[in-house]
Amino acid sequence: MTEQTATETATSIQWHLVRRPVGEPTGEDIVRVEAELPPLANGEVRVRNEFLSVDPYMRGRMNDMRSYIPPFVLGEVMTGGAVGTVVASRAEGLSVGDVVVHDLGWRDVSQADAREFRPARVPDGLPSSLALSVLGVTGFTAWIGLKLVAGLREGDVVFVSGAAGAVGSMVGQLARLMGASRVVGSAGTAEKVGLLTERYGFDAGFDYTEGGIARSLRSAAPDGIDVYFDNVGGEHLEAALRSFNDGGRAALCGAISVYNATSDPGVKYLSNVITRGLTLSGFTIVNYWSHLPAFAADMRGWLADGLITWDETVVDGIDATFDAFTGVMNGANIGKMIVRL
Amino acid sequence: MTEQTATETATSIQWHLVRRPVGEPTGEDIVRVEAELPPLANGEVRVRNEFLSVDPYMRGRMNDMRSYIPPFVLGEVMTGGAVGTVVASRAEGLSVGDVVVHDLGWRDVSQADAREFRPARVPDGLPSSLALSVLGVTGFTAWIGLKLVAGLREGDVVFVSGAAGAVGSMVGQLARLMGASRVVGSAGTAEKVGLLTERYGFDAGFDYTEGGIARSLRSAAPDGIDVYFDNVGGEHLEAALRSFNDGGRAALCGAISVYNATSDPGVKYLSNVITRGLTLSGFTIVNYWSHLPAFAADMRGWLADGLITWDETVVDGIDATFDAFTGVMNGANIGKMIVRL
Repeated sequence: MTEQTATETATSIQWHLVRRPVGEPTGEDIVRVEAELPPLANGEVRVRNEFLSVDPYMRGRMNDMRSYIPPFVLGEVMTGGAVGTVVASRAEGLSVGDVVVHDLGWRDVSQADAREFRPARVPDGLPSSLALSVLGVTGFTAWIGLKLVAGLREGDVVFVSGAAGAVGSMVGQLARLMGASRVVGSAGTAEKVGLLTERYGFDAGFDYTEGGIARSLRSAAPDGIDVYFDNVGGEHLEAALRSFNDGGRAALCGAISVYNATSDPGVKYLSNVITRGLTLSGFTIVNYWSHLPAFAADMRGWLADGLITWDETVVDGIDATFDAFTGVMNGANIGKMIVRL
Repeated sequence: MTEQTATETATSIQWHLVRRPVGEPTGEDIVRVEAELPPLANGEVRVRNEFLSVDPYMRGRMNDMRSYIPPFVLGEVMTGGAVGTVVASRAEGLSVGDVVVHDLGWRDVSQADAREFRPARVPDGLPSSLALSVLGVTGFTAWIGLKLVAGLREGDVVFVSGAAGAVGSMVGQLARLMGASRVVGSAGTAEKVGLLTERYGFDAGFDYTEGGIARSLRSAAPDGIDVYFDNVGGEHLEAALRSFNDGGRAALCGAISVYNATSDPGVKYLSNVITRGLTLSGFTIVNYWSHLPAFAADMRGWLADGLITWDETVVDGIDATFDAFTGVMNGANIGKMIVRL
């Protein structure tokens, strides 16, 4: 697609949710739609997307249930983070060529009021996909969870589950930068476990598919843990509850292990919350937007100092979006799962 | 027993733990001992106890497990709150006739270093047993849980389980005094439920043995709850998790429903902690002693203004202590369960 004038129509390829999945989503739950976009109205911009974000939390939005963000609407597009370039504009403040971030989701061309878009502000020399990961929701989630939810303190021992994922690999690095004395993580393959210590600076990692999680965690953190950043839920949370030192704090961010579950097995060892004086706090970034500038300042500084390592698992093409999504649900990614258009 | 000189010996009737119970404690787990007390050493006092406290948390201490307070020692006395009068003293600062509180537990006469005892400071005209309840650990627990753990805010809807118990009946009244807009509670008999609204100022109560707890809670608090003070755990906690508004806070104080359990069924609906941004905080007063003066000032003020209603279930005699303890575990009490010597 080349630069367009605002008076032209355009075609947008989109993915719509047409059925709410029960258990694991299938290709019949979504449908590919070619939508005709009208000429721009006053105040609107048209954006050619370069990268789409696919994230585990989207599984929750496929259900018709109460949550911090409303469910996806049946018959409408799967919304979510994306970054692209303005190709036509009838809005002040956004010009053709600007790189912007938005939440309009799984489509190759997004057209909407300019207020739906914000400048990506990725430092020169870095890919714009970082607006979806390190400098975007992924990094922000890690930063909030450690700093504001778990209240990380100098010397804490930190455990993160799903540690080779987009959020997990950030949590490990940020925990260290914030003063943790020991950082341990779990991942689902030997290759990922290797990355934890060799690439992301973890002190120890373990494969949660090998042997019991509780036993593996005790080996990785023999003196117990003070902070747990939970991306997984279920047996991981139980293991953390058993390894917590007195006064331990859990930031509950995700529960990928149960997103596709059709029944709730319950979490054992909750009595330790009382006997050890623990705090479990669920959080989502929607309540923390006011902290975005402070996060961005921290992260730009760390990036400039070369202190942040990141990986992306890139899948090409709008038609591969659903496969990328099921992939991230099944742990096919190292670092951030990204669709490149 | 009359006033004694410090050089006399004395007899102390005590209850010792001799076996760690599995499931519900039985009379074979403890044994009655008559101990001979030597003459007072320098710095010691001898106290004739008037009231002993029996509390659900003591069940946890009968197990050999890690907790915020160490387990009871096999072959030694069941320790815990008591109030009595100094009958002999070889310590400065404590004189014969002083009424003191201590944690030396299930015995009729306590003798120890004076630093084990603190002045009861119960206002004139009120029974000294209040040093174990309203002005003691019971009231302090309610105050900390609402104010410092759950962070009660003006207008919050508050739910408390075990609401006719010693702590629960205080929680209901203090929640109202701290600005809650609606206070609801559960109890285990129709008589107790009646007390909630008729005597302790709750807006609504329900019998948790009748129908499902989740359904009853939705009826009692149709607009959801903001704060949950948990004395019970298990199904009550699950019901709270389902009724919480976004940003809800639970102060987890006790789990009497599972203290005697030999297996852990797990707690369902924990995923709501993430989707609703909830915080679950376990607490015990041992980490909050520095707030005792602030609590005492609040409570003395409320008592002086006639704003506090309390009940005691009194059992007479050191030999009835174990029955009183099993009674409080099984909900035989209204308000604080007290043994009067």
